[in-house]
Amino acid sequence: MKIAVLGTGMVGEAIASRLMGLGHEVTMGSRTGNNPRALAWAARTGGGARTATFGEAAAPSELVFNCTKGSSSLEALRAVGAERLEGKILVDVANDMSAAGKGPLSLAEEIQEAFPGARVVKTLNTINCGVMVDPSRLSGAHAVFMSGNDREAKGRVGELLRSFGWREVIDLGDIATARATEAYLRLWLSLSRALGTVQFNIALVR
Amino acid sequence: MKIAVLGTGMVGEAIASRLMGLGHEVTMGSRTGNNPRALAWAARTGGGARTATFGEAAAPSELVFNCTKGSSSLEALRAVGAERLEGKILVDVANDMSAAGKGPLSLAEEIQEAFPGARVVKTLNTINCGVMVDPSRLSGAHAVFMSGNDREAKGRVGELLRSFGWREVIDLGDIATARATEAYLRLWLSLSRALGTVQFNIALVR
Repeated sequence: MKIAVLGTGMVGEAIASRLMGLGHEVTMGSRTGNNPRALAWAARTGGGARTATFGEAAAPSELVFNCTKGSSSLEALRAVGAERLEGKILVDVANDMSAAGKGPLSLAEEIQEAFPGARVVKTLNTINCGVMVDPSRLSGAHAVFMSGNDREAKGRVGELLRSFGWREVIDLGDIATARATEAYLRLWLSLSRALGTVQFNIALVR
Repeated sequence: MKIAVLGTGMVGEAIASRLMGLGHEVTMGSRTGNNPRALAWAARTGGGARTATFGEAAAPSELVFNCTKGSSSLEALRAVGAERLEGKILVDVANDMSAAGKGPLSLAEEIQEAFPGARVVKTLNTINCGVMVDPSRLSGAHAVFMSGNDREAKGRVGELLRSFGWREVIDLGDIATARATEAYLRLWLSLSRALGTVQFNIALVR
């Protein structure tokens, strides 16, 4: 699949590399298109890894990962432009630490509201990027969550997650349920401090 | 131990009954002291179960459980009075659904600020009351969290939790970390809808 990964940080890099490894055609998008981290990633990854501006990366892609910082995600997506996101699956992985629990809307809802033609799916925002793309790093079963208004989009994102190795993918409901996983960031941060590691996740016990 | 349980709802009843079963001297406190639900609980529970006003229940107790509704907890504790809470362990189990993620402070911090002489420990607010008092209802290991400024108070509350059957009791840190577990309420609610049950919890996977 043609996939754009917007963002050149640890999360963008982890997702882009994993998608490349799975055989997808990946373009890493950045504001300028020649972001040094993006170029370094492409050089390291070898043949086929592309870099471009946010807009150029998104334009030919079927699916777009938002891996930008939560605090600048809306700006990055405005640089892409609504018409280039029309009908596309927009996987929002970002967390806005500064906004956790601040406004009534989650970042994912704000994105869905700003780009009504995009099919936003919030997921993977409850774990460290190493665990996101390789859940088998942790021992035993653990869960990842999905929120979104479009059932078919969630189905396709669910397949992609399973190709990463995820076994328990829990559909929480519409995009408003992203508030729940974005609010969980607070607990993730406290747990990370208490446990002394970022390599952890939660499992559901019934 | 002499323990006051403030609140006559499902949570107060579950905690009070469990403590009685463990041999503690329990008084269920309510605003009026003769709340019909409190009287029914005492009648059902049999010999030794006491009821009183919030203040009368707390006065002779070493440890006070706040099981009132989060939205009226401060009012209930003001009815107890700061002098009756001085130096005591105040276990705050309450969640304020209406306030989740609204203000900068958690309910537990607001309580600690309003009653600086009390040793507030936030715990058990991340599970349904049935699971709170009997974690073995769920299969396998799962976790409960604690937040509080007083190390000795957390130690004693930890013992009490272990007597309920809890094996994994995670100390998140000072009372400010209660924001994390109070914010988790959003995810708990979404999960409960997605799973179709209130009988669940999370386990930590490393």
